Amino acid sequence: MTDLALIAAVSIFTAGLTVSFGALGPALGEGRAAAAAISAIAQQPDAAPTLSRTLFVSLAMIESTAIYCFVVAMILIFANPFWDTVKAAALVGS
Amino acid sequence: MTDLALIAAVSIFTAGLTVSFGALGPALGEGRAAAAAISAIAQQPDAAPTLSRTLFVSLAMIESTAIYCFVVAMILIFANPFWDTVKAAALVGS
Amino acid sequence: MTDLALIAAVSIFTAGLTVSFGALGPALGEGRAAAAAISAIAQQPDAAPTLSRTLFVSLAMIESTAIYCFVVAMILIFANPFWDTVKAAALVGS
Amino acid sequence: MTDLALIAAVSIFTAGLTVSFGALGPALGEGRAAAAAISAIAQQPDAAPTLSRTLFVSLAMIESTAIYCFVVAMILIFANPFWDTVKAAALVGS
Amino acid sequence: MTDLALIAAVSIFTAGLTVSFGALGPALGEGRAAAAAISAIAQQPDAAPTLSRTLFVSLAMIESTAIYCFVVAMILIFANPFWDTVKAAALVGS
Amino acid sequence: MTDLALIAAVSIFTAGLTVSFGALGPALGEGRAAAAAISAIAQQPDAAPTLSRTLFVSLAMIESTAIYCFVVAMILIFANPFWDTVKAAALVGS
Amino acid sequence: MTDLALIAAVSIFTAGLTVSFGALGPALGEGRAAAAAISAIAQQPDAAPTLSRTLFVSLAMIESTAIYCFVVAMILIFANPFWDTVKAAALVGS
Amino acid sequence: MTDLALIAAVSIFTAGLTVSFGALGPALGEGRAAAAAISAIAQQPDAAPTLSRTLFVSLAMIESTAIYCFVVAMILIFANPFWDTVKAAALVGS
Amino acid sequence: MTDLALIAAVSIFTAGLTVSFGALGPALGEGRAAAAAISAIAQQPDAAPTLSRTLFVSLAMIESTAIYCFVVAMILIFANPFWDTVKAAALVGS
Amino acid sequence: MTDLALIAAVSIFTAGLTVSFGALGPALGEGRAAAAAISAIAQQPDAAPTLSRTLFVSLAMIESTAIYCFVVAMILIFANPFWDTVKAAALVGS
Amino acid sequence: MTDLALIAAVSIFTAGLTVSFGALGPALGEGRAAAAAISAIAQQPDAAPTLSRTLFVSLAMIESTAIYCFVVAMILIFANPFWDTVKAAALVGS
Amino acid sequence: MTDLALIAAVSIFTAGLTVSFGALGPALGEGRAAAAAISAIAQQPDAAPTLSRTLFVSLAMIESTAIYCFVVAMILIFANPFWDTVKAAALVGS
Amino acid sequence: MTDLALIAAVSIFTAGLTVSFGALGPALGEGRAAAAAISAIAQQPDAAPTLSRTLFVSLAMIESTAIYCFVVAMILIFANPFWDTVKAAALVGS
Amino acid sequence: MTDLALIAAVSIFTAGLTVSFGALGPALGEGRAAAAAISAIAQQPDAAPTLSRTLFVSLAMIESTAIYCFVVAMILIFANPFWDTVKAAALVGS
Repeated sequence: MTDLALIAAVSIFTAGLTVSFGALGPALGEGRAAAAAISAIAQQPDAAPTLSRTLFVSLAMIESTAIYCFVVAMILIFANPFWDTVKAAALVGS
Repeated sequence: MTDLALIAAVSIFTAGLTVSFGALGPALGEGRAAAAAISAIAQQPDAAPTLSRTLFVSLAMIESTAIYCFVVAMILIFANPFWDTVKAAALVGS
Repeated sequence: MTDLALIAAVSIFTAGLTVSFGALGPALGEGRAAAAAISAIAQQPDAAPTLSRTLFVSLAMIESTAIYCFVVAMILIFANPFWDTVKAAALVGS
Repeated sequence: MTDLALIAAVSIFTAGLTVSFGALGPALGEGRAAAAAISAIAQQPDAAPTLSRTLFVSLAMIESTAIYCFVVAMILIFANPFWDTVKAAALVGS
Repeated sequence: MTDLALIAAVSIFTAGLTVSFGALGPALGEGRAAAAAISAIAQQPDAAPTLSRTLFVSLAMIESTAIYCFVVAMILIFANPFWDTVKAAALVGS
Repeated sequence: MTDLALIAAVSIFTAGLTVSFGALGPALGEGRAAAAAISAIAQQPDAAPTLSRTLFVSLAMIESTAIYCFVVAMILIFANPFWDTVKAAALVGS
Repeated sequence: MTDLALIAAVSIFTAGLTVSFGALGPALGEGRAAAAAISAIAQQPDAAPTLSRTLFVSLAMIESTAIYCFVVAMILIFANPFWDTVKAAALVGS
Repeated sequence: MTDLALIAAVSIFTAGLTVSFGALGPALGEGRAAAAAISAIAQQPDAAPTLSRTLFVSLAMIESTAIYCFVVAMILIFANPFWDTVKAAALVGS
Repeated sequence: MTDLALIAAVSIFTAGLTVSFGALGPALGEGRAAAAAISAIAQQPDAAPTLSRTLFVSLAMIESTAIYCFVVAMILIFANPFWDTVKAAALVGS
Repeated sequence: MTDLALIAAVSIFTAGLTVSFGALGPALGEGRAAAAAISAIAQQPDAAPTLSRTLFVSLAMIESTAIYCFVVAMILIFANPFWDTVKAAALVGS
Repeated sequence: MTDLALIAAVSIFTAGLTVSFGALGPALGEGRAAAAAISAIAQQPDAAPTLSRTLFVSLAMIESTAIYCFVVAMILIFANPFWDTVKAAALVGS
Repeated sequence: MTDLALIAAVSIFTAGLTVSFGALGPALGEGRAAAAAISAIAQQPDAAPTLSRTLFVSLAMIESTAIYCFVVAMILIFANPFWDTVKAAALVGS
Repeated sequence: MTDLALIAAVSIFTAGLTVSFGALGPALGEGRAAAAAISAIAQQPDAAPTLSRTLFVSLAMIESTAIYCFVVAMILIFANPFWDTVKAAALVGS
Repeated sequence: MTDLALIAAVSIFTAGLTVSFGALGPALGEGRAAAAAISAIAQQPDAAPTLSRTLFVSLAMIESTAIYCFVVAMILIFANPFWDTVKAAALVGS
């Protein structure tokens, strides 16, 4: 197993793990917030605009943690500095 | 075990893990939001349009985390930059 | 253990894991949504059409995550690009 | 351990794991939906036909994820393309 | 460890695991449905026939996932195609 | 470690695991159903015969999954086809 | 490690595991049923005979799964067919 | 590691595991039953004799599973048939 | 690693594991029973003697499972038959 | 790794594990009992002496399981019979 | 496996793990806070500004723990002092 | 790896594990007791002295299990008898 | 694997683990406190200043545990005394 | 791997683990206590000083377990007696 293959294998595995594990918390948190918002609108239909706005801000805030994970996964796949360094070293060595 | 096989094996395993683990949270979160919406419509049938719209926006938001996982899995299977690099190297080597 | 066997073994295991693990969340989420819908229809029988429609849209949305998993498992079994590449290489080598 | 045995062992283990793990979620989800339906019929006996119909549609939807698992397990046991390929290769080799 | 023994060991272990793990979900789900049915009959004794019928259909549906597991375990023990193939190969080889 | 010992060890371990793990779900499910039945009889003593009958049918249904496990464990200990085959082979070989 | 020692070690470990793990579910399930019965007798002291009878039938049913485990453990310790076979073989071999 | 030491080590570990793991379920189950009985006596002090009797029968039933575990642990430490066999063999061998 | 050291190491580890794991269930169960008793005395101060007596009997019953664990741990440390046998053998061997 | 070091390492690890794992259950159980007592005193301040006495007896009972663990840990560190035996043997051997 | 590759592999894996695991708690905590805020606004629409402000401060506080994780992951990928040291050493060595 | 290093490594790891794992239960238990006390004071401000006293006694009792862990960790770091023995032996040996 | 690389790898992994695992508890605890504060302000808008102050003190207290983790992670990355010692030794050795 | 590196690696890992795992319980416990205090102040604003004082004492008590962990981690990093001993030995040896 060359270094190149090790880095590639770890990057692939980590990218998948990051994005899938990172989807767990946000999805549950957003589900809870959305459920609360829907129940609240049903109780107080007149406050729907305020409630929607609060919901969307909250969803954006919660989604941000999922986006961090997605960004890290994309960096690992498409702009991985370790991979670039090791690939350059391999080209020089060959 | 050649490098090529290692990368392939890790990609296959990660793709499956990503999409299956990434389905857990969104499915539970969507189930919770949908349950809240259905109960809310039963309590306040007049607000059904508002409730449905809020539900659909929330479902889309929650589904997005599952879609991140699906996208990463598809990239790993069909557009994997590590695989392309290592396969090219193997062709050159042979 | 040849490369061919490694890829095959990983593909088989991942396909099964993906589809079985991916069934957990959707089944629980759908159960929750269905339970809410049934309780809601009992409380408000007049709103049954609206409730059913909302339920079916939600079930479809939740089921989609299970279908992603099924699709990935089918791709891994019947249209696996890594397997095709390695099998072609094995034919050339023999 | 020959390749043939490895593929067979992995297929057997995965088939069992898939169908048993894939039974967990659907069984719990169906139990929840059925419990809700039974309570609902007791509260509102007049709506029993509507409730039963909604229950059966939901059960079918939830059962589908268990059936995906069963189908994958059957494919792995009786129509496994990897097994067929490797067995053919073994026959050619012998 | 010969191939024959490996296949046998994996088949035995998987059969036991499948049937025991596959009993967990259905047993819990049926317990929940049965508890709901019994409470419902106590609340509404006049609806007992409808409730019983709904309960039995639900139990059958839930039990089906346990039966999938039992069927797979029986296939692995008594009609295992991998075992038959490898045993035939062993006979030819000896 | 001979093949004979491997098969024996795996059979022993699997038999114990199957019957002990398979007792978990049914015991909890039966406990839940029984608790519901006892509470229901206390609320509605007149419906005791109907409730008892429903309870016993449910207990039988739930117990069936534990019995599947017990049957598989007994087969593995006393009528194990893999053990018979390998023992016969060992006798022939000696 | 001789075969004899392997079988003995696995039998000892499995017997202990079976009986201890198999005690978990029944104990919890019986605790739940007993708690329900005691509460029910306090609410409806006149129904105590019916409640006690239902409780005892349920406890017997739940206890049965613990007894399956105890029986399997006893078989593994005192009437283990694999141990008998291997011990006989060892005697012949010595 | 001689066979004697292996059997001894496994017996010691299993005895401890059995009795400690086997204490978990019964202790929780008895705690639940006792809590229910105490609450029930406070609600209905006149029924204390009936409640105490039901409690003691239930505790005895639940305790029985812990006693199975204790008995198995004692057998493994003080009357272990595998240990006796292997020790006798070791004496003969020396 | 001599046999003597193996037995000693396993005995030490098992004794600690037994007594610490065996404390989990009883402590939780006793906490629940005590909490119920205290609440019950506050609701019905006149029944305090009956409640205390029931509580103490229950605590003794629950504590018994912790004492089984303590007894087994003490046996393993101070009256371990396996250790005695192996130590005697070591003395003879030296 | 000499025998002496093995015994020392296992004793150290086990002592720490015992006392830390053994603190989990008692702390939770005492927290529950204390919470119940405090709530009860607030509801019924006149019964404070009886409640305090019951609380202290219960806390002592629950604490006893933590003390078992502490005692075992202390024995393992400061009065370990296995360590004494092996150290004596090492002195003789050197 | 060179040192360089080891550091790179560990850094990649840790970065992904950090950001994905660190998203779990904040997402759940924010979902809870947001749900409480939405319910509160529906109950008391007049206090919406105060509630929103409290919510945003709380979300910022909770988000900070996720941001710590993101910062550490970014440091590990783009400004890793260990990587710099080891890469410099490798350049000197080559 | 010398004996000295092994003992040191195990002592360090165990000390940290003991004190961190031992903080889990007490912190949760104290949180529960404190929450109950605060709610109780709000309901019955006149009983604050009695409630505070009961709370402090309970907190001290619960904290004692955390202190056991801290004491054991300190003994392992600063007054470890195993370390002293092995270090003395190393000095003699060098 | 040189010592330098080992220390670096462990430091990187530990820093990430510390900060991500240490974010779990504080985020959940802060979410709970914030939810309580928001609900409380909605019930009692007049007490908002007192409630906010209590909330901020509590959040600071809870955040402190996350900050301990962040500090330890930063020390491990940027001011690691073990790394400094080993790097100095490596420079001397080269 | 020299002894020095082993001690350093274990110390680093343990310090991080201690402080991050030790933050879990206190953070959750403090969150619960703070939530109770905030709800209590909203119910009974007049008792705010008493409630705040009780809260702060409780938070300090709970925080103490987190501080134990922080102290142990700091000792392991900056005043580790094992590290000092082994480093001195290494200097003498070189």
